[in-house]
Formats: sequence, structure tokens, C-alpha cells
Amino acid sequence: MLRVALFGCGRIGRVHAEAVAGHPRAELAWVFDPVETAAKEVASQYGAAASTDADAVLADGSVDAVIVASPTPTHVDLLTRAVHAGKAVLCEKPIDLDIARVDACWAEIGAADPLVMLGFNRRFDPSFREIRDRVTAGEIGRLEQVVIISRDPAPPPAGYVATSGGLFRDMTIHDFDMALFLLGDVVEVHAMGSNLVSPEIEEVGDIDGAVVTLRSADGALAQITNSRRCAYGYDQRLEAFGSTGMLIAQNQLPTSVRYAGAERSESAAPVLNFFLQRYGPAYRAELDHFVSAVEKGARPSPDFADGRAALVLADAAAESLRTGRTVRVGG
Amino acid sequence: MLRVALFGCGRIGRVHAEAVAGHPRAELAWVFDPVETAAKEVASQYGAAASTDADAVLADGSVDAVIVASPTPTHVDLLTRAVHAGKAVLCEKPIDLDIARVDACWAEIGAADPLVMLGFNRRFDPSFREIRDRVTAGEIGRLEQVVIISRDPAPPPAGYVATSGGLFRDMTIHDFDMALFLLGDVVEVHAMGSNLVSPEIEEVGDIDGAVVTLRSADGALAQITNSRRCAYGYDQRLEAFGSTGMLIAQNQLPTSVRYAGAERSESAAPVLNFFLQRYGPAYRAELDHFVSAVEKGARPSPDFADGRAALVLADAAAESLRTGRTVRVGG
Amino acid sequence: MLRVALFGCGRIGRVHAEAVAGHPRAELAWVFDPVETAAKEVASQYGAAASTDADAVLADGSVDAVIVASPTPTHVDLLTRAVHAGKAVLCEKPIDLDIARVDACWAEIGAADPLVMLGFNRRFDPSFREIRDRVTAGEIGRLEQVVIISRDPAPPPAGYVATSGGLFRDMTIHDFDMALFLLGDVVEVHAMGSNLVSPEIEEVGDIDGAVVTLRSADGALAQITNSRRCAYGYDQRLEAFGSTGMLIAQNQLPTSVRYAGAERSESAAPVLNFFLQRYGPAYRAELDHFVSAVEKGARPSPDFADGRAALVLADAAAESLRTGRTVRVGG
Amino acid sequence: MLRVALFGCGRIGRVHAEAVAGHPRAELAWVFDPVETAAKEVASQYGAAASTDADAVLADGSVDAVIVASPTPTHVDLLTRAVHAGKAVLCEKPIDLDIARVDACWAEIGAADPLVMLGFNRRFDPSFREIRDRVTAGEIGRLEQVVIISRDPAPPPAGYVATSGGLFRDMTIHDFDMALFLLGDVVEVHAMGSNLVSPEIEEVGDIDGAVVTLRSADGALAQITNSRRCAYGYDQRLEAFGSTGMLIAQNQLPTSVRYAGAERSESAAPVLNFFLQRYGPAYRAELDHFVSAVEKGARPSPDFADGRAALVLADAAAESLRTGRTVRVGG
Repeated sequence: MLRVALFGCGRIGRVHAEAVAGHPRAELAWVFDPVETAAKEVASQYGAAASTDADAVLADGSVDAVIVASPTPTHVDLLTRAVHAGKAVLCEKPIDLDIARVDACWAEIGAADPLVMLGFNRRFDPSFREIRDRVTAGEIGRLEQVVIISRDPAPPPAGYVATSGGLFRDMTIHDFDMALFLLGDVVEVHAMGSNLVSPEIEEVGDIDGAVVTLRSADGALAQITNSRRCAYGYDQRLEAFGSTGMLIAQNQLPTSVRYAGAERSESAAPVLNFFLQRYGPAYRAELDHFVSAVEKGARPSPDFADGRAALVLADAAAESLRTGRTVRVGG
Repeated sequence: MLRVALFGCGRIGRVHAEAVAGHPRAELAWVFDPVETAAKEVASQYGAAASTDADAVLADGSVDAVIVASPTPTHVDLLTRAVHAGKAVLCEKPIDLDIARVDACWAEIGAADPLVMLGFNRRFDPSFREIRDRVTAGEIGRLEQVVIISRDPAPPPAGYVATSGGLFRDMTIHDFDMALFLLGDVVEVHAMGSNLVSPEIEEVGDIDGAVVTLRSADGALAQITNSRRCAYGYDQRLEAFGSTGMLIAQNQLPTSVRYAGAERSESAAPVLNFFLQRYGPAYRAELDHFVSAVEKGARPSPDFADGRAALVLADAAAESLRTGRTVRVGG
Repeated sequence: MLRVALFGCGRIGRVHAEAVAGHPRAELAWVFDPVETAAKEVASQYGAAASTDADAVLADGSVDAVIVASPTPTHVDLLTRAVHAGKAVLCEKPIDLDIARVDACWAEIGAADPLVMLGFNRRFDPSFREIRDRVTAGEIGRLEQVVIISRDPAPPPAGYVATSGGLFRDMTIHDFDMALFLLGDVVEVHAMGSNLVSPEIEEVGDIDGAVVTLRSADGALAQITNSRRCAYGYDQRLEAFGSTGMLIAQNQLPTSVRYAGAERSESAAPVLNFFLQRYGPAYRAELDHFVSAVEKGARPSPDFADGRAALVLADAAAESLRTGRTVRVGG
Repeated sequence: MLRVALFGCGRIGRVHAEAVAGHPRAELAWVFDPVETAAKEVASQYGAAASTDADAVLADGSVDAVIVASPTPTHVDLLTRAVHAGKAVLCEKPIDLDIARVDACWAEIGAADPLVMLGFNRRFDPSFREIRDRVTAGEIGRLEQVVIISRDPAPPPAGYVATSGGLFRDMTIHDFDMALFLLGDVVEVHAMGSNLVSPEIEEVGDIDGAVVTLRSADGALAQITNSRRCAYGYDQRLEAFGSTGMLIAQNQLPTSVRYAGAERSESAAPVLNFFLQRYGPAYRAELDHFVSAVEKGARPSPDFADGRAALVLADAAAESLRTGRTVRVGG
């Protein structure tokens, strides 16, 4: 059994705790959180030990792996200490909001060739993964265009937004990773933003909607559409258009029931509301990939470099938003 | 140009008038109806002559073909006279409600090897025809089961029902023909009926819902579900299940627009309401088949024998309803 | 924690073992099977004790509940002994193939007012349950017609078929229960069968396809279509047609991915292949219902009487198949 | 009857000829084309007079309206002469490739307050129009994002491309108009282009794929995705996302038939192949709008100003392609 320590007991931390508890070859050994009651609550739920001292947890030689699910500003520090303690790490996105800190982190840990996986859960969504696999298998010929639609059901609290690094680093980061997952290297970025949803978001200097265009090194184009609010739930769609065909992942519905009546037909329930419902299987598959990588000492995917690459695109999008120009990225 | 006389100016007569007027190789020459104002109204709309005297119309040697769209009790007489006058005939279903009269009609006209087509318009629906063609081409292997769902939006007036010959001869007759179209000969019939829609229909001794089971000579099974009322429009679906696959024709929608909101998703407008909307293209294709058959002197399909075969099944269903037994038909 | 003993380690037994192991308020205490290696294999997988002696298991006072998942001929005996031992019981369908034995069983145990639940898993399928709930809530007005399509991907071995009690008691029994779940009491049954799939099935005197028609006490009609073979997987659909609308549960797909190319569009992967995939969530929900009923001492649904009612319809269908008549059932 | 003269007998001219011939209140009076055989062929098909002299046609006082469907470079001249001759005009898009000539044209004819309609046929597609109407009716709240996917089945001949004005003025012009139709005034334009389809197109200095982003005066964002090649037919989709819901128009299929087999399920035929199939009803509705406008002397929509507005966006997109910058448009 892989012994796992969880760092951070917020919403996403609990998702990971449940995934670890449900995995046949992993167990939750420790739960760390500076808030003792939070650590104890999650620990007791899964029979783990609780601690408010990360170093004490890292000192436990029986711990194989650490999941970093704490607030973003703490990621680099905890990740670095975990790597130095010889643990494999699954780190939630983003590594950090500041690319300089990300690079400094890697300068610190890279020589150790650490096993670090990034928590881009959507790569493990069965529908998106199927598209990636079929594209890779050549089923639609050369990939020429990608369309990503990604809308959250409701905006986060303004307080969260203020420290989130902005829409591109907080929300679009997942879509940048999905684009990279399908397209490989990206060389150009353009973005337009909008403030249509929340005056509070505008007040803290962020946008709440965006359209981003990317060009890959191979010349393919990608579009990302974001909104912080979506009246019908969690809108998560992906289209890959190639020279010989097209693959599309539609939104997912809670059941297969359809209604017909005098006012409408083929009517389904609203789409799955948010990431816990939509990406539940993805979180479990993500953890399974991490566990397998640790067991085999294999390189996980996505890794630290993937986390950096998505942040580079987020930074480029932010620059494009300021300047109105297409921004070139990469070497 | 094929010169066509229309007998009967009711709802279905007007459908045929429009189809003839819109056909590039046919023209409406005469409109006959015992009600002079009706005949004149339709005739003037399409530049045809009007008459209340069928014999006068049949005496016009320039008329090539007659469409019999008058009330059912007049079909046999008008059909017989038209054949005797040397005209090709497209006769609305059913030929008659009484199989004895149908057989007597054929005894009277059969020797002339007349060109008589039956108005089973659904055979010309592009979706149903595609299923028939793909089944015939072997795309789903051996045909083993057929499911027909056929529901009208609202019951006809009780006065009409009283003289309609009953649900099986009036409404299910189309479904019997569709089953024969797909399955070939049928050897067993069972029916259950219900009275859930209209007390008036029950008062005149008819049913307003039914489930019919058929067995073909090849051993395949078919199910027909009927209702005289359907809250969401004209429910017309067909499923062909074979040894290697299945083909299904879903209901048809007015546009491709779908709505998503807080209460539902993928919601479409109601299905097409009734036969004028749903089967408009079928009526035009039916007429085109008739015109081509007359031009070439070829045997049309469906023909008189097809009209008789569907009536045989309707009679068997009525018998099964009375006796509760599976009824054998055919030789 | 509810302590559960599993009787029978075949395919369906293992489904239950996994569901118990995954339930937060239940644990697998014992695994009984006359084949010791089978009992030990499943027991060791979930940390339970193994036994080839059912009485020894029933003598364990710490066992709260028994799941009877052994071969059908042993159901009545094990169920009876478990009830006498004071255990709550979840019994797989059918109770027995012989209605006389079913009634004798109840005569033996009924006075104890036992907590016995029947394993009609499809009642717990989220889509079918949603339809039941919305019908009950009046969303489609009065329920008038039900259409059930139920086809297995491939026939079971002929050896199994020979002792299965026939298609109606082995396979259609689920559909009879679904019809009862939606319609309440049924008063008339008609059936036609076919032998199109497997000569071996015909040799043992059974059919491999069927169409069944039912009438409820309220006058609604239902149709069931069965086939022992379905080229495209496990075909499980349900339609409820009411006076003001219709609800339909379509087949379920592994992902939401659709393909468009030169030869087809909107093309999905094949439907989920068989019951383990399609009804996984249903088995878990079924167990949860059972656990909750035992915890509360509440009457589970479906119960023993539901198991008997479905068998009555299976017997009536078999009689209709022999006689070609509509068979009346019930008081 | 409205007497219509057709200028230009190419592919799109014949579409208009058929629409006029099929309209109950219009008739094709004249067909003009500098190629006499072409003019005569179309004229004889519909019983019209043929001419190679546009002035002669315009001199016919019985002609009410002119449809300009000639090559783009002739539009301004023919439109101007038709207006001077007092005719109502339906002019194919684009008015001209050069905004200066467009403005000069209006300077010449605007004082006459002419009845000029632009041939943006997609505004009359029943699905797109339904979306526009429901957006206008407030069904999805405030319109915030528009997604237009528009791909042609195959690139036009390189010779055509060389004189087409480029992708934005030739193909995207329709999508610009659709965006304006939904969003009203547009204030910002950004474009990226690609050359993935045809080396010949690259050789003549044009692109064969593009992604365009627009911002409306109200702050809404729109995305357009174009490709000159689409393996699965004519891809024409439209999504309107609002504060309370979303409307989407999917691609359209030739029939409602779906196939299920061992390798796929819910599989439909390819989408409608090109504009004659997809937009047939739109062309007829467009003509009907024109006829009604002429009859009533009402302002048609889209009009000359709409034609100019779409060209302004095309020019801005071309500038953005050159400069990599977001381009501001409008006052």
C-alpha cells in the first residue's frame, strides 16, 4: 500500500482524501493543515493521523507520497520540502502564480529528478482522454483546430478572486493545459476579456469572461471561451477538428432521461453542476495514474514542466489583454 | 405533362392538389367533388377545371390519371370507374373497410391489369425509406424485430370515428403497411385495445389506443403502439432490429435549435405536429413515384394488393380484440 | 456497521460483495459457498470469513443481514433458514421458478413479518427511477402506455438456459417487475416468442426472443421486447407515455464523445455492454436501500410480494405462449 | 405578381431563379448574362426572356425588381444602374471588396432612398432565425458570448480564391453578418489565420483557416472559427450564450435515422453537404422577405448598410492578421 500524506484540507483536499481512501493500493497516512480542527476532521474520517506540522509529516519515513492541495502561495514551499524529504508529489495547479518562483523552485529541486505530478484533472476525464487518444491514433488526420468551451456555474467569492492571480492563471489554466495536451507546443497567444458577470470582480481588477486564441508550433489554431457564470451548470466541452474528421465531447447529463410535452421535446435535466460531479471519475483516474507512477518510479504526466507551460500561456494571455497584441511565446 | 384529375377536395385532397401543382411533369386538369363550391375553390387555386360529375371528368380523353381522395365509402366505385375509363389511379387508403368489397373490386378490374397505386404515404418518408433500403441492403443482417410507435396528436371528431371502420382500419392501417413493407408476409396477429382518451370514441364502440403484435412468415416479430392522442405532437417512430445492428428513425423537429438553462438542457421544440408537416416531403415523393410509374407504364408500389394486405391485418387485429386470441392470417 | 453475510460467490455474488465492501455503513462478515475455494477467494479479497456451512454463518449472532445470491433452486431454502435465524435478507431474483414453492415459502416465513428484499436491481437505475418518480409526481398526467426494450448482448450457455426456467422467468422477469413498478397491478398478459438466435436454445425447448403485451388494472397498456442477442450491446430502454407528456430513458454510453467524418456524423461508441457496466450504480443504490431498511426496520421495496408478482406474470406469459390467448391474472 | 429580372446565371443565380419561379407572388421576367447561352438556358427553363444587355432589361418598365447575382466586381455598377432605373434590388454579398467603392456607391444612390436588400441568406435559416428571435425576446437574458463555427466542405478553385478578396471578405463575411445580426455594433476585431489546407491558396497569398474574435459595443464577445475544408460536410453551427441560458443550432442531417452496431451507436449520416442543401429553405425565405418588402415599400433587412458593416469587419480582420493587433472599428 502506498502511504500518502495530504497537505491541505480545503474543498479540493477533501476530493483527494476520498480518492486516496477509495484506491485499492493507497492509504491516507497523514493529513496536514495549519487549522488543527480541519486536519483532525478529515484525518478521523479516513483513519489517518492529523498534524499541523508539515515537517513532522515529512519526517515520517513510511510516507511515500504527498498531495499538495493547500492554498496556491504555499505550493512551492511545500513541494520543495516534500521533494527534499524524498517524497513523490502530486501538486495541485497552479504551481505558483509567479513564473519566476516556479523557475526558482525547479532550480532548487530539478537536479534531484523528482517525481512531481501536476493536478490537471481534466486530462483524466474519460471523454477528453478518449479524444486525445483518438487524435493521437490518427483517427481525424492532422489536428487543425481545437475549440474549448469552459464556463463555471457561478463566480467564486470576490475575496478569492482578488488573490487568485486572475482568470487566466486561476481558471483558464486548465484550458491552457488541455490545449497543450492536444496541440503540443503553443507559439502565439491572443486574449480578449470582458466584465459582464460581477462588479466585485471588476473592482479587484480582474475579468469574468474571456476569449483566447492560440496557435501551435504545428500551425493549428485553438479557441478557448470562458465565463465565470453559466446559468445551466458546468459547461465543459471540447472539440478537435482534423483534416479527415472531428471529435467532440458534449456536456454530461445526470441520467439518460428525456421529456417530451406540449412545449418541448428531447428535454434533459441540466448538465452536471460543477467539478465534483463532472470530474469525479477524473480525480480517481488521476490518483491512480499517480499511484502507478510512484509504484513504478515512472515519470507521471502531466508533470512539473506541464505546470510551467500552462502558466506561460496564462502570462501571455494577461500580456495580450493589456496590450491588445498577439503575444509570441516559446523559444 | 401528365394530366391529373383529383376526386375529392377534403383535407387530403388538397394535399394531393398541391403536390400535383408543384410537380414539374404533372398538371392538375380537373377537380371533382359533389360539393360544387369545394371543387371550384380548389380548381381555381391551381388553374384546373371543376366538376360535380365524375363521369364527365373520366370522359375527358386527355386525362391520364386520377387521384381518388374522396370519402372511403366511395373509393371502390370511383376507382372501378376510373380503371374502366382507362385511367391510372392513385387511391387513398383504405380501398374499402370491407374485404369482400375489396375482393369484388379486384374481380371487376383485375383482368385489365390496371395501374393502381395505394396512398400509403409513409413508405415515401425519407427516414423510413432509408431504413427499408438499408435493411434490404443487409446492413443489419437478418431482420428480427420491428417496433412501430404511431400516435396522433388529437382524436378526430367522434362523427368521423363512427364511420371510420375503427382504429385498426383507419389509423393502424398505415402501421400494418409499414410492417409489411419491412417484414414481407405476416402470419400471426394479436391486439389489445384501450379506451383512455375519449368517452365519445368508446360510445361509438371503438378503441382509442392499441398494442398490436405481428409475426412474419420469416419468424420476425413486430410491435405497433397506437394512441389517438399525443400531448407532444405527431409521434412517428420506427425501429428495425437485426442480427448485426439496429436502425431507428426518431421523431422530427422543426429546427436544430437546443436550449440549456437552469431547469433543463438540450431541450428542443415540440416534434412536428401532424401529417402535413411531418409527411410533406413524403406526399411529394409519393406523387413523383406515381407520375414516373404512369410515364413508364411500370407497376407502382404500393399497389392494390398492398392495400388489401394491410386491410387483412386490420381485420385480424379486430378479430383478436374480440376473441383475445392470436389470429393466423394468410394461406 | 451492518454485518452482512453473502451466500453464493458466482458472478452476481461478487457484484454484491463489492457493493457491501464499498458501502460506508456495511461490512462483509462472512462469505458462504459450497465450493470452498470460491468462498475463500471472495472472503480474502474483502477481509471476510469464509465458510461452506450456511448454518454456521447463520448461527453467528453478530450477522445482521444475508444476501442470497446462490443458484435459483437454493433460494427458497436459504431464504427460509436465514429468516428463521432472524436475519434480514436481500434475495436475488427469482425467488423460485415454481409459484407453488414461492407460496409455500411465504406460508413458512410470512407470520414472522420478515424483512425480505428482492434483488430487482433495475428499480435502482437512476434513469428508470427518475422516470418512476416523475410519473408518480404527475409530470406526464395519467400513465397510459409503457414501452420496455430489453435485449442482452449474447445468449447464456445452453446448459444455463436448460435450467433457467425459460426466457420469461429468467430474463423477462426484470421487465415484468419494471412494468409492475410503473403500472401497479397487471390483469392481462399476452406473449409471442421466437427462435431466431440460437438453435441450442430451441433444442432445450426455450425461446430466444419475445414480445409481451400487458394491461394494467387501470387500463394502461405495456409492451416488452426481448432478445437474447443484441449486436450493439446491452439494450435497455424504457418509455412512459402519459396523457400530458412522455419520458424516455435512452441507452447509456461510455463517454460523451461523438465523431463526424465523411461517412457518418454524431457517431458514439457502442452502448454499455452488459449489466455490470450499465447497472453498477443501480447495484450500489440497491444495497444502500437494503442497508437503510435494515437500520430502520422499515419495509424494503421491492419485497417478497414483488418477487411473487413478477413470477405470476412470467407464468402467464408462458401460458399465453402455449395457448395463443390473452391470459387474465389476479383476482 | 412581382416581375423580377435576374442578373447573373452562375451557381447562385440559378438558386435565385428557382426561388423566384417557386414563389407564389413573383415571376421571372428577364434573365441577363453576358454569356448568351447561359442567359438563354436559365430563361427558357422558367419561361423568362433572355438578354445580354442589362440596360435593355432595366428599360423594361414592367420589371419591378432586380436580383444582382453576377460576379462581385460587377455588383456596384449593376446595383447603381438598377437603382437609377427605379428598381428594387436584392444584391448578393459582398457589395464590393473595396470599402471605398461601397461608400462611393452609396454616395451615388443613397439620396434616392433605394430599396436595396443584401443577400445574407443565413439570416433566413430557420434555426439561426429562431435563435435571433429568442435572444431578442429575452429568453437567455443578456447576450454575453457568441460562438460561430463555419467550415466549407472543400476549398474553391485557386483561381476563384485569387480574386475573391480573401477568406474574410469571401467566406467569413457571412459570419461577420451573423455576429452583427445577433450582437449589434462591433467595436473590436482580432484574427489569426492558418494555411493548413491548400498550398495553392497560400501561393495566392490567402489563408484557408481562421479564428476571429469580436467585441460588441455592449461588451459581449464572439468567436468565429473558419476552415476552407471540412471532411464531414458543411459545418454550420451557432451558439448564443446569455446570462440566464444558452441556445445552440446544431448541424442538420438529411434524415432522422440512427444506426447502432458492434462498432458504434446513435450514428447518423453525414451532415448536409453544402449551402444548396443546408440553406435551401433560407434562400426561399430570403426571397419571400424581399418580395414582401417590395410589395409594401418597406425597408428590407439586411440592407445596404448591413452589407457595408460586414465588410468593415472583414477589413479589420485583414488588418489584424497583418499587424497581430486587436483593431478598433466604428466611431
